Amino acid sequence: MTLSTDIAELRRGTQELILEEDLQRKLAKGKPLRVKAGFDPTAPDLHLGHTVILNKMRQFQDQGHHVMFLIGDFTGMIGDPSGRNATRPPLTPEQIAANAETYKAQVFRVLDPARTEVMFNSSWCNQLGAAGMIRLAAQHTVARMLERDDFSKRFAEQRPISIHEFLYPLMQGYDSVAMRADVELGGTDQKFNLLVGRELQKHYGQEPQVIITLPLLEGLDGVNKMSKSLGNYVGIQDAPGEMFGKLMSVSDELMWRYIELLSFASLPMVEAWKREVAEGSNPRDTKVRFAQEIVTRFHGAASARDALADFEARFREGAIPESMPEFSLAAPAGGLPIAQVLRSAGLCPSTTEAVRLIEQGGVRVDGERVSDKGLRLVVGSEHILQVGKRRFARVTLAVPGNSAGDRG
Amino acid sequence: MTLSTDIAELRRGTQELILEEDLQRKLAKGKPLRVKAGFDPTAPDLHLGHTVILNKMRQFQDQGHHVMFLIGDFTGMIGDPSGRNATRPPLTPEQIAANAETYKAQVFRVLDPARTEVMFNSSWCNQLGAAGMIRLAAQHTVARMLERDDFSKRFAEQRPISIHEFLYPLMQGYDSVAMRADVELGGTDQKFNLLVGRELQKHYGQEPQVIITLPLLEGLDGVNKMSKSLGNYVGIQDAPGEMFGKLMSVSDELMWRYIELLSFASLPMVEAWKREVAEGSNPRDTKVRFAQEIVTRFHGAASARDALADFEARFREGAIPESMPEFSLAAPAGGLPIAQVLRSAGLCPSTTEAVRLIEQGGVRVDGERVSDKGLRLVVGSEHILQVGKRRFARVTLAVPGNSAGDRG
Repeated sequence: MTLSTDIAELRRGTQELILEEDLQRKLAKGKPLRVKAGFDPTAPDLHLGHTVILNKMRQFQDQGHHVMFLIGDFTGMIGDPSGRNATRPPLTPEQIAANAETYKAQVFRVLDPARTEVMFNSSWCNQLGAAGMIRLAAQHTVARMLERDDFSKRFAEQRPISIHEFLYPLMQGYDSVAMRADVELGGTDQKFNLLVGRELQKHYGQEPQVIITLPLLEGLDGVNKMSKSLGNYVGIQDAPGEMFGKLMSVSDELMWRYIELLSFASLPMVEAWKREVAEGSNPRDTKVRFAQEIVTRFHGAASARDALADFEARFREGAIPESMPEFSLAAPAGGLPIAQVLRSAGLCPSTTEAVRLIEQGGVRVDGERVSDKGLRLVVGSEHILQVGKRRFARVTLAVPGNSAGDRG
Repeated sequence: MTLSTDIAELRRGTQELILEEDLQRKLAKGKPLRVKAGFDPTAPDLHLGHTVILNKMRQFQDQGHHVMFLIGDFTGMIGDPSGRNATRPPLTPEQIAANAETYKAQVFRVLDPARTEVMFNSSWCNQLGAAGMIRLAAQHTVARMLERDDFSKRFAEQRPISIHEFLYPLMQGYDSVAMRADVELGGTDQKFNLLVGRELQKHYGQEPQVIITLPLLEGLDGVNKMSKSLGNYVGIQDAPGEMFGKLMSVSDELMWRYIELLSFASLPMVEAWKREVAEGSNPRDTKVRFAQEIVTRFHGAASARDALADFEARFREGAIPESMPEFSLAAPAGGLPIAQVLRSAGLCPSTTEAVRLIEQGGVRVDGERVSDKGLRLVVGSEHILQVGKRRFARVTLAVPGNSAGDRG
C-alpha cells in the first residue's frame, strides 16, 4: 500500500486529524508508530459504539503499528476525590486487574493481541509524586483550561468546577509523554485533552502526538448515540442471532454509516458496494454481507452462517407476502411496547386484545414468535408484524418529528 | 493574667483575628495552643519588618503556648516549576538545612528556643503523593480560588495564572492539617491562604484554626513598607550603633507605631508612656527607651548602653547649637546622596565641592564624621548636617508630595 492509501484509510470515519502533515512525517520514517488510546478502569460491557475506536486501533495494527491499550487505573484507584459521588468508590488493585481481564476478553475480538500492549498509568503516575504533580500543573494556565467547552459552560453558569478536574487533562497528557505516543485516539469530547498531550510532549522535548478524534456511533434509531440506557445498542456479547437481527433492522442510510465506522472492508470495496446499489441491487444484500462480517468478528463464521440461515428460515416459514400495509409510528427514545404498536398498526382493536394474542402465541415480529408481552421495539427500527396466519403490517418506529404516521 | 488581658495583648497590632470566639474557646481549655507561622526556605536576612510576626509568636510563647516555626521547604525544593523564573532554582536539601540554621541564628533573638519547634513541610507533603495532591485539589473550586484578590485581578486582566498556583494555597492549608494548628499567623496578604487552612481542617475533622493577620511594618520613611530595596530598613544584624541611630531618626508618630508592633512593653506600660508625653515629657526620652529595648534584644544590654553613650557623645562633642536653618527636601524612594543634600541645604556651593569636603573629613551627619562619599540619606529621616566647625543645618528627607522645601 502507498502512504496516501494508508492515510486515506486512517482518516476514514474520523472527526478530526491533527495534524495530517505530522502524521505524514511520522509515517514517512517507516518505523512502527506508537498508538495510544485510553480506557476507564471500570468493568466494561462493550457495544458496537465502543468498537469505533478499537477498529481504528486495529487499522493501525493492520498497517504494522504498535497499539497501546491504556487502562487509566491511577484515577480509578482515587475514586471520586470530592466525596460527593458515592457511586464512584475507589477501585482496589484486584478490581482493576479483574476489569483488565474483562477488557481483554472483549477487545481482543477486535485487536490483534500480538500487536497490543496493555498498559496501566498508575505505574508512572504514582512515581510523579506531589512535587511532580505541581510541576505538571505549572505547564498550563487557568484561562487555557477554562477554554474547554464543558468547563467554560459550567464556569459561565457558576456551577462548581473542582480544582482536581483541571489536573485530569494534564495527567492524561502526561500519559502521552510517559508512553512516548506518536498518535492518540479519542472521542470527539476528548479533543481538548488530546491537545494537552501534544503541548506537554513539546514541553518534554518530544515530537507532538497526532490526535485523531472519532465520532460517537449512532444507535439503531440512527439519531441518538448508541447507549445501553437508550436501548438502541448492539452489545458485542449479544447472541449471534440477536446481533444479526438488530443489524438487519437498521435503515439503509444508517447501514452506510455503520459500514464506514464498523466494517473492515477497504474503501475501494465499499465504493464498489455503493455502485452496485446505485445501479439497482437490493441494499438488503449489502446489509446481509455487513451483518455477516460483524457477527463473524464476534462469534466466528459458523455462528454467522447459522444466524443468517435462521433469519431467512423464519421469514420463509411465515410466508410473508410481498406487499402489505405500511405504518410509520412516532416513538419516544425508549421505543414502544409491542401491544401499542399492534394496535396502532390496526392489527388489534386494543392493547388488551394484543396482550391476549401474544399469550396465545399468535404474534410474530420479523417472523419470530413473540413470547414476551413487555417487548419494546426500538426507535429507528423497521419490522414486519404478523397476527395469526394472514394479517401483516410493516412498521417503522420513527424519531419524533420525522413521522407522518399514527401516534397510537 | 486574665483571659481577656491575654486576648488584648494577642490582638495588639493585628490586622484581623478570625474568629475571636474561636480563640476564646481554645484558650478556655487551658491547654497550650499550637501556633503556626510559615517561612520561605530561602536564605533569610531579616529586618525589623520581619520580626512583627516573630514578636506575635513570642507573645504566644510568653503566654505558655507552643510555637511551630514552619520552613516551607517542599515548594522550595521544586523551585519555579514553570521554568520562567531563572532566579528561583530548586534548593537542595543541604541548602535548605543551611538556610534553616541561618534562620535559627536570627529568629532565636526573638523566639524562645525551648518553646519553638522548627518543622519542615516536605516531611508530610512528599508523603501526599500524586494521588493525595488530587484529593487535596478536589477540596476547592476554581471559582472560590479566583476570589483571591491577586488571582481575580490577574484573571480580569487576562494575565496568566498557572494551575500550580492554585495548588499552593491548598498545600499551605494542608500544612495546618498535618501540624494540627490551633492558630496560624501571617501577613495581611496571606489572609486567603490562612482561610483555606480553616476549611481544610474542618474537612479533615479538625477544629478550624484561628487566623491572625499582621500588617506590614512601615519603613523609616513612615510611608513605604520596610524593605531592603527601598533602603528604609533596620536590619536585625545591623551594628548596635547603626540600629540605635536609625531608630532615633524616626518621627514621633512612627515611634508609637513601632512601639505597638516591635516593643514587648505591656499595653498598660505603653499607655503610661503616652500619658507622659501628652503631659509634656520630651518624646525623645521614649524613643531612647524604645531604641534601647530593640538594641538590647538583638545585641544585649551592654551594646545598647554603649550605643546610647556613643550617640550622646557625638552630639556633645560636636557642640551642636540649639537653633539652625531647617530644610525639608523632597526625596525619591531610594533617598538622596549626601553631596546633593549638602548642596540643597546651602552648606556647599556644588556637589563637587561637597565631595571634596567629605574627602577632607569636614562633613558630619548626626555628629558622626562621614567617610563614604556615596552615603545616601533615606526618605523620612531627619538629620543634623555639619560642615567644618560652625556651619549647621537640620534636614528632613520628605516623601515626594509632602515637601515644601528645595528640590535640589
